[in-house]
Amino acid sequence: MAELPDKRTAFMDWYLAVVEASQLTDKRYPVKGMNVWTPYGFRARRQLDAVLVREIEATGSAAVEFPALIPSTEFAKEREHIKGFDAQVYWVTKGGLTDLDIPLVLRPTSETAMYPIFAVWVRSHRDLPLNVYQIVNTFRYETKTTRPFIRVREIHFFEEHTCQANEAHATERVRSNLAAFRRMAEAFALPYLPIRRPEWDKFPGAFYSVALDAPVGEARTLQLGSIHHYRENFSRPYGIRYEAPDGSQQYVHQTTFGLSERLLGAIVAVHGDAKGAVFPSAVAPYQVVVIPIPGSEAGEGPLRTATEATERLHRHGLRAHLDGGDERPGAKYYRWETAGVPLRLEVGRREADSRSLTSVDRLGTKGRVALDRLEHEVAERLAEFDRALRARADAAFAAAFSTATSLAELAGSTTVRIVAWCGSEECGHRIETAIDGALLGTPEEPLPTPLGDPGPCVACGATNGSRWAVAGRPL
Amino acid sequence: MAELPDKRTAFMDWYLAVVEASQLTDKRYPVKGMNVWTPYGFRARRQLDAVLVREIEATGSAAVEFPALIPSTEFAKEREHIKGFDAQVYWVTKGGLTDLDIPLVLRPTSETAMYPIFAVWVRSHRDLPLNVYQIVNTFRYETKTTRPFIRVREIHFFEEHTCQANEAHATERVRSNLAAFRRMAEAFALPYLPIRRPEWDKFPGAFYSVALDAPVGEARTLQLGSIHHYRENFSRPYGIRYEAPDGSQQYVHQTTFGLSERLLGAIVAVHGDAKGAVFPSAVAPYQVVVIPIPGSEAGEGPLRTATEATERLHRHGLRAHLDGGDERPGAKYYRWETAGVPLRLEVGRREADSRSLTSVDRLGTKGRVALDRLEHEVAERLAEFDRALRARADAAFAAAFSTATSLAELAGSTTVRIVAWCGSEECGHRIETAIDGALLGTPEEPLPTPLGDPGPCVACGATNGSRWAVAGRPL
Repeated sequence: MAELPDKRTAFMDWYLAVVEASQLTDKRYPVKGMNVWTPYGFRARRQLDAVLVREIEATGSAAVEFPALIPSTEFAKEREHIKGFDAQVYWVTKGGLTDLDIPLVLRPTSETAMYPIFAVWVRSHRDLPLNVYQIVNTFRYETKTTRPFIRVREIHFFEEHTCQANEAHATERVRSNLAAFRRMAEAFALPYLPIRRPEWDKFPGAFYSVALDAPVGEARTLQLGSIHHYRENFSRPYGIRYEAPDGSQQYVHQTTFGLSERLLGAIVAVHGDAKGAVFPSAVAPYQVVVIPIPGSEAGEGPLRTATEATERLHRHGLRAHLDGGDERPGAKYYRWETAGVPLRLEVGRREADSRSLTSVDRLGTKGRVALDRLEHEVAERLAEFDRALRARADAAFAAAFSTATSLAELAGSTTVRIVAWCGSEECGHRIETAIDGALLGTPEEPLPTPLGDPGPCVACGATNGSRWAVAGRPL
Repeated sequence: MAELPDKRTAFMDWYLAVVEASQLTDKRYPVKGMNVWTPYGFRARRQLDAVLVREIEATGSAAVEFPALIPSTEFAKEREHIKGFDAQVYWVTKGGLTDLDIPLVLRPTSETAMYPIFAVWVRSHRDLPLNVYQIVNTFRYETKTTRPFIRVREIHFFEEHTCQANEAHATERVRSNLAAFRRMAEAFALPYLPIRRPEWDKFPGAFYSVALDAPVGEARTLQLGSIHHYRENFSRPYGIRYEAPDGSQQYVHQTTFGLSERLLGAIVAVHGDAKGAVFPSAVAPYQVVVIPIPGSEAGEGPLRTATEATERLHRHGLRAHLDGGDERPGAKYYRWETAGVPLRLEVGRREADSRSLTSVDRLGTKGRVALDRLEHEVAERLAEFDRALRARADAAFAAAFSTATSLAELAGSTTVRIVAWCGSEECGHRIETAIDGALLGTPEEPLPTPLGDPGPCVACGATNGSRWAVAGRPL
C-alpha cells in the first residue's frame, strides 16, 4: 500500500498511480497504448456509455454501427481530412496469406466509412435530419507518450454524425449537442468550458470546431470531446445530396460530436485526490460497498446483515457490492477508497444487533443508516456526497482560470489564462510560445467569472476587434 | 413491394430478401462481407446482447475488453490454433507511414490476446475460477460467399473465457454454459441441439467442442455458437499457472463459450415466413407498433389516441413505436410485418372514440385492447403471440430430424439425419460424402424424439460401440 504521489506537484505520476491502484485498467498488454479494460474499468465504462446513450437518444439520434475497416479509396476522398490522419492510421494490407488489392484503414474516426452510405440513405428532404451515432473503438498510431484513457492507440469512442438541410440547421444541431453534453457532464459532475478552436487547430475538414475542455490543475487542460460543423466540406466529395421541396438538388450540411474514454480519465483527474479515484454516484461502477466486520465474538450476524443490506440495495436498483473476502476490514476500506466508491457501509456486531449500519462516504463524512429504511437513507447519503463532490469540483474550476494582460505574465502560468486576442494566427502563436502551450480558442459559452470588455491584444496591442481567448497546456 | 422468394424452395434467396426488406442490415458498404448495422438492426442486436449479458452475468462472469490487435508473436504461441486461423486473419503491417516491427493480427477470436494477461492475473487458487467475457467485433478474411449475420468478415461476437482449477471444474463450466445458453435460447424462442463435434471438426486447440446447432429447414443447420473445453492446451504455452493449496504449481484448465450475430440470422431463418422476419417479443427491436389511421372525417382523434397509447406503453417499459408518417396505413402494415414486429395496434376514428384499439399480431391473430388497461392487455397479447411462435418453431424442430439406416438413404436428405456411427473418422467421412454435408457429431443432450439403442454403424456395419450421430448440411 504505497502512498500515491502528490497530485499538485507530480500530477501525471499521481494520475498513473491512481488508474493503476484503482484497477481501472491493466497496462501490461504487449502493445504499447493498448490497454485492457478490467472488470472494474469495464463497469465504469458501461455507466459512462449509458449516460451518453440516454442523452443523445433523447435528442432523436439513433444507434448504428459501421465497419471498422475503410477502403483506402474512400479514405482518400476529402483532402484536408486525409492530410490530418495520414500519419496516424493503422493499415491492413494482408488478408490471410495474400496482399489485399485495396489496403484498408482501421477507422481513426468514421466520416469516410459512413458518408458513402449516407449518400445512398439521403435522397429527399424527407430523409432529413439524419442523426445517427455509434459507440465503437477507433485506432490511432499515436507517436506521443501514451496515457491510460487520455492518449491511447485503441480508443473507446462515441461519434454522432448528422446530415442537415442547411447551414442554419447544422448550427442548431451543434447547439443541441452542446446542450446534450451539458446534461452528460452533469452526471459526471465535471465542470468544463466549450471553446471554439482557432482555425489552425480545428478538426481536419471542419468548417469550425468547438472543443469541450476541462481544466485539470495548474495550467493543464483536457479535451473531453468536440463538436464540429462541416458545412458542405464532406457532403460534396461524398455526394450526399437531397431533393429539396422545390425539386432542386442540395448538398447536406453535416455535424459531428465526438467523445471518448477521456471522460473516464477526466473523472479520475478532476475528482481524484490523495486517496485515489472518486466517482460521482451517477456513474460509479459500484455506488455502495458493504463490508462485514467479523470479530471473535461477532458470529454470523455481520455477514448475514451485510448480505441482506446488499440484496435490499440491489432490489432498489442501486449498484452495491458485498465484499465478503477474507482480508481484514482495513485493507478493504483502503482498496475501495482507492477505487473511488462513493459510499461504504460497515457491518460489525453492533450494527447487526441494532440493524443500523455505519456509513462513510468517499469524502469522509460519517453517519448511520437504518437497515429498514436503507434504500432511502443510502440515496440521501449519495445525494449529499454528490453535492459535496460537485462543490469541490466547482471550486477547483473557478480557481483554474485567471486573466493575464501581457505575454510576460504567461510564462510559468499556474492557471489556465484568459487573454485578449486580436484573432490573428501570428498573435495566437506568440501567445502559445509565451505560455508554452496552446491557444485553445474563444469561449463558446460565458466564462465562470464574468469579464468586462477585452482590452488590447496581449500580443500585438491592437485594440480593434479583440476578444477573450483561453490559453493553457493541453494534456 | 415485391413478393419474397419461397422459403421452402429457395431458402437462401428468401433469407437474403428478408434481411434486406426488413432493413436489418445494409450490404452496400464497399467492403464485401462487412455490413452496416442500421438503426433497426442495431436495435435488434442491442436486445440480443442484453439477453447474453443478463444470462452470463447471472453465472458469475464479468465483462472485460481486450485490445483488437494481437502481436504476431503472441498469436503464434499455440500451434494448432494458429494453423486453424492462419489463412483467415487480417494483418496490420503499417502504422502511419512506417512498417511495424511486429505485425499485428486483427482479432479473429481472443485466446491469444487474453491469455498472456491471464498468466499475470492468475497466481493463486484464490484467483480461480476466473470467468470473464467480452462482446466485441472479430474479423475473419472469409473466402466463402458471405451472408448477412451468417458468414461475415466483421463479426459481432460474444466470447467467454474461463480458467478453472482442474479438468472437472472446466467440465462443470461447460455444463453451466450449456444451461446459460438454454435460458438465452428461451428468449430467442429458438429450438437447438447441442452436439459434440467430431475430432476433425473441433475448435483449433480444443480438447473437445460442443456446438449449438439449429436446424433451418431441409437438411440445413446453422451453428449458433459453441462451447469448448481446452484442458491445458493453452495454459501450458501461455504459462497460466497457480499455486494450489498444497503449494504446488498447477496449470489451469480453460473453457470458452462463443456466440455471434448468427443468433440474429437464426431468428430470421427459423421464425421468418412468407411475410418477412418475425421477432419473439423478448428480443424484438419494437414489440408494438402503433398506427394512427387518419380519415377524411377522423380528425385529430386517432393520432392523439395513438400517441397516448405509445406513451403509456413506454411508461410501462414496453418497446413501442408510433408510426405517424404520411404513408397510407396499408403500406405501414406491410413494412412492420416485413420487419417482424410482434404486435400492431391500429387506431382509427372508431378506436379513438371507443378507447379500444384493434390489435393484430404478427401471426395474424386479431383482437381488441382497452386503452385503459393497455399495458396488461398488450402483455397478454404478446404472451399469446410468443406461445404460438414457440409452438410453430418447436413443430418445425421436431419435423427437422429423421433417422436413416443406410448410406443410400442419406442422398438427397430433406431433413437433418440421425444415424448410428461407430465413431471412426473414416466412417464419419463416408457419412459426410453420402449426405453431401457434415457429420455434425454426437448429441450432447437428448434428441427431441427419444431413440432406442443405435444399431450397426450406417457406414461400416460395426455393431460394437456405435452411437447416435447427427448429419446435415451446415449453412
